[in-house]
Amino acid sequence: MPHPMFEKHRATLEGAVAATKTRGYWSPYNESPSPRAYGETALEDGKKAFEALLGERFTLDQPGQTAWYGGERSPYGVALDIDYPVCDVDVLVAAGLRAMGQWQAIGADGRAGVCGEILDRLNKQSFELAHAVMMTTGQGWMMAFQAGGPHAQDRGLEAVAYAWREQSFVPDHTLWEKPQGKNPPLVMAKEFQIVGRGIGVVIGCSTFPTWNTYPGLFAALATGNAVVVKPHGDAILPAALTVRTARAVLAENDLDPNLVTLCVADTPAVTKRLVTHRSVKSVDFTGGSSFGRWLIDNCRQARVYAELSGINNIVIDSTDNYKGMLRNIAFTLSLYSGQMCTTSQAILLPGRGIATDEGLKTFDEVCTDLGAAISELLAKPPTALGVLGAIKSPETLVRIDDANSGKFGRVVLPSRKLDNPEFPQAEVRTPVLLACADSDTAAYMEERFGPISFIVKTTDSQAAIALSERMVAEHGALTVGLYSTSPAVIDAMTEATWNAKVALSINLTAGVFVNQSAAFSDYHGTGGNPAANASYTNSAFVADRFCVVSRRSHV
Amino acid sequence: MPHPMFEKHRATLEGAVAATKTRGYWSPYNESPSPRAYGETALEDGKKAFEALLGERFTLDQPGQTAWYGGERSPYGVALDIDYPVCDVDVLVAAGLRAMGQWQAIGADGRAGVCGEILDRLNKQSFELAHAVMMTTGQGWMMAFQAGGPHAQDRGLEAVAYAWREQSFVPDHTLWEKPQGKNPPLVMAKEFQIVGRGIGVVIGCSTFPTWNTYPGLFAALATGNAVVVKPHGDAILPAALTVRTARAVLAENDLDPNLVTLCVADTPAVTKRLVTHRSVKSVDFTGGSSFGRWLIDNCRQARVYAELSGINNIVIDSTDNYKGMLRNIAFTLSLYSGQMCTTSQAILLPGRGIATDEGLKTFDEVCTDLGAAISELLAKPPTALGVLGAIKSPETLVRIDDANSGKFGRVVLPSRKLDNPEFPQAEVRTPVLLACADSDTAAYMEERFGPISFIVKTTDSQAAIALSERMVAEHGALTVGLYSTSPAVIDAMTEATWNAKVALSINLTAGVFVNQSAAFSDYHGTGGNPAANASYTNSAFVADRFCVVSRRSHV
Repeated sequence: MPHPMFEKHRATLEGAVAATKTRGYWSPYNESPSPRAYGETALEDGKKAFEALLGERFTLDQPGQTAWYGGERSPYGVALDIDYPVCDVDVLVAAGLRAMGQWQAIGADGRAGVCGEILDRLNKQSFELAHAVMMTTGQGWMMAFQAGGPHAQDRGLEAVAYAWREQSFVPDHTLWEKPQGKNPPLVMAKEFQIVGRGIGVVIGCSTFPTWNTYPGLFAALATGNAVVVKPHGDAILPAALTVRTARAVLAENDLDPNLVTLCVADTPAVTKRLVTHRSVKSVDFTGGSSFGRWLIDNCRQARVYAELSGINNIVIDSTDNYKGMLRNIAFTLSLYSGQMCTTSQAILLPGRGIATDEGLKTFDEVCTDLGAAISELLAKPPTALGVLGAIKSPETLVRIDDANSGKFGRVVLPSRKLDNPEFPQAEVRTPVLLACADSDTAAYMEERFGPISFIVKTTDSQAAIALSERMVAEHGALTVGLYSTSPAVIDAMTEATWNAKVALSINLTAGVFVNQSAAFSDYHGTGGNPAANASYTNSAFVADRFCVVSRRSHV
Repeated sequence: MPHPMFEKHRATLEGAVAATKTRGYWSPYNESPSPRAYGETALEDGKKAFEALLGERFTLDQPGQTAWYGGERSPYGVALDIDYPVCDVDVLVAAGLRAMGQWQAIGADGRAGVCGEILDRLNKQSFELAHAVMMTTGQGWMMAFQAGGPHAQDRGLEAVAYAWREQSFVPDHTLWEKPQGKNPPLVMAKEFQIVGRGIGVVIGCSTFPTWNTYPGLFAALATGNAVVVKPHGDAILPAALTVRTARAVLAENDLDPNLVTLCVADTPAVTKRLVTHRSVKSVDFTGGSSFGRWLIDNCRQARVYAELSGINNIVIDSTDNYKGMLRNIAFTLSLYSGQMCTTSQAILLPGRGIATDEGLKTFDEVCTDLGAAISELLAKPPTALGVLGAIKSPETLVRIDDANSGKFGRVVLPSRKLDNPEFPQAEVRTPVLLACADSDTAAYMEERFGPISFIVKTTDSQAAIALSERMVAEHGALTVGLYSTSPAVIDAMTEATWNAKVALSINLTAGVFVNQSAAFSDYHGTGGNPAANASYTNSAFVADRFCVVSRRSHV
């Protein structure tokens, strides 16, 4: 008998699998925070639910609790004062392992169904999650809702769909009949059991605590593993809400809730002990390359899926829509103050300028005009505050000040500090735009996380393409862009992205931006350059998270 | 227009993909070396083709040749005296990278078709390959034909099928239309390019130079990579023939033959330089754990798929076919003198004996009777010589002598040296059977490659199952067996194999043996215990060998 949750979510799962193959637009979760989609009271209910959490202990009823710990600092200056259970790592791992037997027994369909139910419930919680994401990350409201809610849920469902598809190729059992000429055939009954590899640890980042956590969480879960979620210390709440919902759904389905637990680490040593535990078989990580490298070097008992630092770039050769191009890039550089792993850091263009629908634009004109486009986009405070959000970390503020001081190159447009009347303590900054020569590699060829971008002068478009390829191959990138009206240049850039293995967006001038990637259609990362050793989401992201254990006997 | 090779082999590929899903018996390559299957003159032609190679230089027309090198020593004492081209590693890698562009361009279907053609041609060469495998490995003739020819081709095709299936989920292009309420939808054209990760190196072993090489070779090739085959120095010829055929097929199809090259390493330093080359992105390895560990620790730029050492075991609880059980185990221990990665090394049974259809058999009786079954199987010289083959390495001879001396435990049946009239220099040895207590872990809990097996006395069946699980989890295994008439014991053993992640064969008493794994049906290795970090063949074996690089633009 199919698991009731599988029956309930079967159509969604089938739709998701079909979407991963056709890769057209598809999503079961409405990205519009409208009453029509989420109910008349959803906005208010979500806000209230969020506010009820403030200043309280966040109970999870996990085993091995030893303390309470919190201390998240909101970039909006809101007092969160939430304490989370600190649990012994060995106890969490042991409890996860114990929970895996039942989880294995309900099979791939059952697991996909229960994961679908968890995602459905998270979707209904989108407003509460949006507040949690906004207040912990500094994202603007709309982005926190979309990226933190439905888009993150899309990415989670995408991982479930891939996991379900891969497992569906493994039959439960078969009859193997090998002809023996004139003799009776050899006949064997064979059974195939899908077994999760062990404990999956998912390490969240501070800027996208759901979007970057859900792929690993649901990939590991759907393939039969228990998961310990280790959120970034500055963005615990969205992960804690997610874990609580997952545990509730598991319990309602007579499954051991300890299959999904939250590990709040009060010291870095706790995290290191967790990820190197012998029963931990996968680690999903989003964050800086230095800890990412540490994980890859030290978690030898596990497969590490890591999204690390990179230097995204855009090559400008020519355009037939100069204004549209400037507006598009200006938005990319401004959104969430450039605190995205997909924000472009380096814009490469020929020193002699570019051909446009408005005639030749010199290098300096492009610099000035892009600066003006950013200023124009952010001219009205409500728009600016919504687009920019707040700066998450003090280190980013230091980097912005350094860039403003001219330390990294000529300042085309300095960053400005804006006031947010609603959140007076929020650190709001507009992007800083710098110009430099391609020889100034010390300036631009290092990730400078935040709203800091460089316009880099190259000899010609060919040199820009070669530089783009080299930057991606050596330093990594999740996205590159190109503006060109020349098919030959587009072909050359395409080949450069094949070599360096990075996704390319060409001539974006309208409502799609190079820093966006759409679930079920765009792969987030190729897994083939230093910015990420895995992609969200493809077969490779799920296929090695489970084993098939067979048994056979004569009939 | 589909590639002609894809059209030619499409039905076979579709059959292979279907077989991987149903996992019933299936093979396109006839395992019978009969004139009906391979032609009246195939036997004689294959022998002549093999003999024509002896004492000659084996030309391959590869770039960067610096020397000739050979020195394979046949376990049958046949003088091979074949020299192979030694080529500069950097030149081979560079040539492989250059060849990848064309290979990428013909797409997944084209690649699968060309791989199908290579396998088809290898199949037609099965007799020549059988001689090459027999004479370099010491396998008996029938085994060399089957495992070295059609069964190896099966495993190669299986890898192609998985690779083709995974790539087929990636569409070439799509139209992405995102509704925008009352506004016109956002529309983007997206293209998806499958790009191989780089150079795949496949390191062969000395005992199964085709069966263990073809999965990695064809998995890497079919997913868009160039492959450098680095055979074991004692079994170069089967790999060289394979590479020559692959190169011929590539050239016939207007593809750069340097996509597949042979690296004959005259010093270990060459191998190390090859596998750590920055353009090498995958390493497939079969062999000992010590070099395997070195590869995993040092080839950090590549994904290493490693089949390493292990200690396969069989638990005997009870049986309703005592004679059949003994015969079956005797054959497993004798086949190719136990020089298989799937040969059982430890047979675990209760000290108080086992219930059988012939009444209770004490521990000592089982020991004696298994010894007798081995002696009976090998009583007739022609059968014995065919089953045993010859001992491949001097180290194995030393281990056999050590075992015979009683160093590792009580000798139940000593190994005997047999004469092979046809090959007087062949070192032929029957299995040595030892008995020991479960506390003698120093004796049996270490891989002793070759025809050396231990009957280990445990407290009871429960203890035997626990010991089996522990051995697999700590030391690895590709196969375990169980004999029991008790459903409860079978369930307990099944659960132990889920925990330790190893394939289980239950009550084998007829024409299937625990050391055999059938392509398209049995997974060879689970990838989940120390004997192998990957399986032949599943999605995980192919999915991470290629990247998807997308580009998108507004329509």
